[in-house]
Amino acid sequence: MRFGRDVYRACHLIGLIAGLAWATQALAQTDPLPSWNDGPAKRAIVAFVNITTDTASPKFVPPAERIATFDNDGTLWAEQPMYFQLLFALDRVKALAPQHPEWKSKEPFASLLKGDVNKALAGGEKAIAEIVMVTHAGMTTEQFEGIVKDWIATAKHPTTGKLFTDMVYQPMLEVLAYLRANGFKNFIISGGGIEFMRPWTESVYGIPPEQVVGSRIKTSYQTTADGPVLMREAEVDFIDDKTGKPVGINAIIGRRPMAAFGNSDGDLQMLEWVPTDRPRLRMLVHHDDATREYAYGAESHIGTFSDALMAQARADGWTVISMKNDWKRIFGFESH
Amino acid sequence: MRFGRDVYRACHLIGLIAGLAWATQALAQTDPLPSWNDGPAKRAIVAFVNITTDTASPKFVPPAERIATFDNDGTLWAEQPMYFQLLFALDRVKALAPQHPEWKSKEPFASLLKGDVNKALAGGEKAIAEIVMVTHAGMTTEQFEGIVKDWIATAKHPTTGKLFTDMVYQPMLEVLAYLRANGFKNFIISGGGIEFMRPWTESVYGIPPEQVVGSRIKTSYQTTADGPVLMREAEVDFIDDKTGKPVGINAIIGRRPMAAFGNSDGDLQMLEWVPTDRPRLRMLVHHDDATREYAYGAESHIGTFSDALMAQARADGWTVISMKNDWKRIFGFESH
Repeated sequence: MRFGRDVYRACHLIGLIAGLAWATQALAQTDPLPSWNDGPAKRAIVAFVNITTDTASPKFVPPAERIATFDNDGTLWAEQPMYFQLLFALDRVKALAPQHPEWKSKEPFASLLKGDVNKALAGGEKAIAEIVMVTHAGMTTEQFEGIVKDWIATAKHPTTGKLFTDMVYQPMLEVLAYLRANGFKNFIISGGGIEFMRPWTESVYGIPPEQVVGSRIKTSYQTTADGPVLMREAEVDFIDDKTGKPVGINAIIGRRPMAAFGNSDGDLQMLEWVPTDRPRLRMLVHHDDATREYAYGAESHIGTFSDALMAQARADGWTVISMKNDWKRIFGFESH
Repeated sequence: MRFGRDVYRACHLIGLIAGLAWATQALAQTDPLPSWNDGPAKRAIVAFVNITTDTASPKFVPPAERIATFDNDGTLWAEQPMYFQLLFALDRVKALAPQHPEWKSKEPFASLLKGDVNKALAGGEKAIAEIVMVTHAGMTTEQFEGIVKDWIATAKHPTTGKLFTDMVYQPMLEVLAYLRANGFKNFIISGGGIEFMRPWTESVYGIPPEQVVGSRIKTSYQTTADGPVLMREAEVDFIDDKTGKPVGINAIIGRRPMAAFGNSDGDLQMLEWVPTDRPRLRMLVHHDDATREYAYGAESHIGTFSDALMAQARADGWTVISMKNDWKRIFGFESH
């Protein structure tokens, strides 16, 4: 009798423990944002998805109108010590240098080839434009795609030694997947070059080329013996930054987003462009974690998060995501 | 016994007839292109869909790469007696005339207001550009969308008296639906204005705004007391015609189409831009049915199907769709 009761109790306990374990696992599995700490940012995302996708909700939004837009540099992947596309351009300058002996005595190339990036970039936007034009133009779109694919598959981040596609933010990958699973169409709206992003956004973010909006140079249609090509010309066609973001969203998407994520002054107008007469999500990633990533704000030259932006976020009720407090994990390669 | 056998036979016959009726109906239901006559055009479309979507086919194409592009004027809807967007512009000139007394003595407006469209358009592209700019610019994108929606809901075609959205080609609606049901993403690639099409392409063609590429005027971002707006400026931003079509496809879609449908010289480069190293569908609608629609070709001022285009179609194996022979029905409002 006693033995019987012990066995019964043991079985009961095992069942209870197993049940608890199962429940805990189920709970973990159903959390769509496991890399986010519980807090106002995570709660805002979940509440927004629930209210817009619940057919019983008075704020239900038809799937066709569920548009979400994301800045890329500093929002979906890192942007320090400089924009990754600039690191790509510097690598291209080195690779092309043997064909350009004149670069040895011509700025900004001379300094670059000596490894003095700061001096090369001291020429400001003009220097950057010159570097971009020699590294991004003068080839077909197909050739450029091949160059980007080769680089992104092998080049390493200068301080972490990781592939650049490993430098994406795990919590943002979860937001992309969560929104997509709930019928949202995610678009990248980046100041970066559109054809620098498209070769890898589908495999890394699940965002196909036709949902990528970025800055562009002009292309010209030419027929060759091997068929038609689009040549990349050394002329800017569109800068997808600041007021260019709503302009690009309108030109390419033709609907205003319900959710927009950015991290700098360049994203202000995109967040403003989210209509306020229906459910909305306007979020800014704040780089405030010097230990796990970087801490920079108004003093930064890239990805500037000015005091004015912070003031507008507070005044308009935009949500500031603290990487330090809101993100349990920043990169997928971190142990956890 | 005899009676019994008759009943048996009758039942058998009824069953047979019912079965035949059911089979016929099922066959009709499974024909995805009921408004097409059996012929090379219809067979080319069906063969293309079968070969690209059958997972057992060596030419199977993943859904993400199934991109189809369609010209609009003369391909998806009619374009006679003149482009419908021009009719829209003429209606706008009449509506705006009371606010512009100077138009009474200023061409091309003076002739237009007297009802002499030919004289007004004698000024060529410059006259058309002037008309477009006063009727399409100087308002917000939202205001323009409202104007287009009002017009498209009420304006009637000058000869048929039908709504313009009734002037779409029934066989092409079937192609759009058939491709969509087979995982293709359909895009409009039109020389027409992008914001003239977007307000109605989703309900009429099942093509959402983000899958519409067209000619554009510039927009500028402005903040107002009621929130931000995009003002439509009197400056051309992009002409999505001829070589502009592959340029626009690349800028906005970022993939080359596998299927392309056009009807004029303005579509030549779009059809060339379809890669030839995989299954493809390159089709030109030929307006050769003076009885049921219109017959026009190289002599036409709009939608020109030149002899050179016909020669290239033959040389490169593009399929010419004869509206007269290939289409059982042209418009949905026809009795059948």
